[in-house]
Amino acid sequence: MSAAAAARGRVVFVGAGPGMADLITVRGADRLRSAEVVLFDSLADPALRGLAPKARWIDVGKRGRTGVAHGAANERTSAGQAMINALLVKHASEGKRVVRLKGGDPGVFGRLEEELEALAAAGIECEVVPGVSAAMAAAAATQRPLTRRGSGRSVSLATAMTGDAGIQAGHHADTEVFYMAGRQLALLAHRLAEAGWPGGTPACVVSRAGWPDAIATDHTVATLADATALHAGRPTVVTLGAGATPIGTAPPRREHEHEHLAQPREHDRNRPGAPRQTLRARSTTTP
Amino acid sequence: MSAAAAARGRVVFVGAGPGMADLITVRGADRLRSAEVVLFDSLADPALRGLAPKARWIDVGKRGRTGVAHGAANERTSAGQAMINALLVKHASEGKRVVRLKGGDPGVFGRLEEELEALAAAGIECEVVPGVSAAMAAAAATQRPLTRRGSGRSVSLATAMTGDAGIQAGHHADTEVFYMAGRQLALLAHRLAEAGWPGGTPACVVSRAGWPDAIATDHTVATLADATALHAGRPTVVTLGAGATPIGTAPPRREHEHEHLAQPREHDRNRPGAPRQTLRARSTTTP
Repeated sequence: MSAAAAARGRVVFVGAGPGMADLITVRGADRLRSAEVVLFDSLADPALRGLAPKARWIDVGKRGRTGVAHGAANERTSAGQAMINALLVKHASEGKRVVRLKGGDPGVFGRLEEELEALAAAGIECEVVPGVSAAMAAAAATQRPLTRRGSGRSVSLATAMTGDAGIQAGHHADTEVFYMAGRQLALLAHRLAEAGWPGGTPACVVSRAGWPDAIATDHTVATLADATALHAGRPTVVTLGAGATPIGTAPPRREHEHEHLAQPREHDRNRPGAPRQTLRARSTTTP
Repeated sequence: MSAAAAARGRVVFVGAGPGMADLITVRGADRLRSAEVVLFDSLADPALRGLAPKARWIDVGKRGRTGVAHGAANERTSAGQAMINALLVKHASEGKRVVRLKGGDPGVFGRLEEELEALAAAGIECEVVPGVSAAMAAAAATQRPLTRRGSGRSVSLATAMTGDAGIQAGHHADTEVFYMAGRQLALLAHRLAEAGWPGGTPACVVSRAGWPDAIATDHTVATLADATALHAGRPTVVTLGAGATPIGTAPPRREHEHEHLAQPREHDRNRPGAPRQTLRARSTTTP
């Protein structure tokens, strides 16, 4: 390897967004196009490969895991993380232009810290391209802004998965968003009640936000566990409080079923919603 | 106007990202390309116009205001907002494909709620395309992830501008990010101290994140006011706590001056940083 080739080697961390390929940034797509090696987590949209067909794509995600947003990064073992760190250092040291593709935004529950540390220790240049985080994707899919006039002036992003520490929940902001919550909804509901959230607090559960088959369902803290079956096996985000409430006069909403956000039902558009305190596993669709 | 034309009219809210045109999503760029009318805030990168050169671009931002992230949306008067709402309804009702371009992510301090409400009341179909929010852009520019192993498990997004209620600050999450803080840093520091943040808590101030001339400076809660002059007149984000600390062994850092993130100084790369408690208006650059 020539000194010039070694000097060229660098790693660009790219936020792929919440899933579907066209939610990557233009800058991220450009970095992918010039990549020679791409390390990705298994949840990345296969369509992203079309941006760098000649690159070597290496799947470093944990296979067979579902129900978690942002890939399985937060459940990765230390050994698995060490392997990823070593691969990044190896390919960049060989002079390759490496892209490390991460779900959502790399700096939010992406374990970016550990990979940056390994590359800093090896003296390898890095760049970070931000991405759309799952909380924002869920809010866009449901057309429910995370901040609201008067009632929603702060947003908290937390993960429902904390490894050995078990699940955590607090009452910190007007709107709270929990990542990677799909398999822990009953426990999350319990912790939220313990933290002082009233049982009637609205909770919107969105899985596969940003995809054509995204599903959003309305619940409350008291009925949150009902969402488990509706979103089973899908990357899931829970939005709680001010940002979970529908906008405007008539959110499309139907009882006892769920459907894809991409299939709006026009005749539901002007149906008044029931009081949100009484919603139980009721589903919502938005155009 | 034909019924078909009226039916076609719709509004797509697009998150433009924190500023520079290539931080928009691919989906957002696609929506811009097919727009006939674009309503934008004055901070949007002029390069975005290249995506829709034949569209009618209408500047609805408050001119002459600087020092705020995400446009001047949060300072907009009710009359100004009503005018924007009316323009959105008017153009969509005329059958136009309208894009409402918003800085950052539309659902985070973007006053999206008010515009969605107006369009829902008028029966106009909407879509929301999420974007990169300023907090994530600042974290990417400084290569400082908002979440950290062990010490940074939650992130709070808040605005330092609350209109008539004055500035607010709390101690809610391991990492707190304040939007639109540029002109209020002294007051923000005061409120943070009142809320119980120790004076030595690291605070990273980033202005024009995502642009080639982004500036990042390191401070503490006690010295945060020193950042005012360094970032004067620029959209500014303050990151506090776990997510404000540099990564790895040797963050590039220099005393008593600031410089652009796009001009890394190689010889600073391996210089050990001083303890963060003693940082005073010290600047940092990252490659």
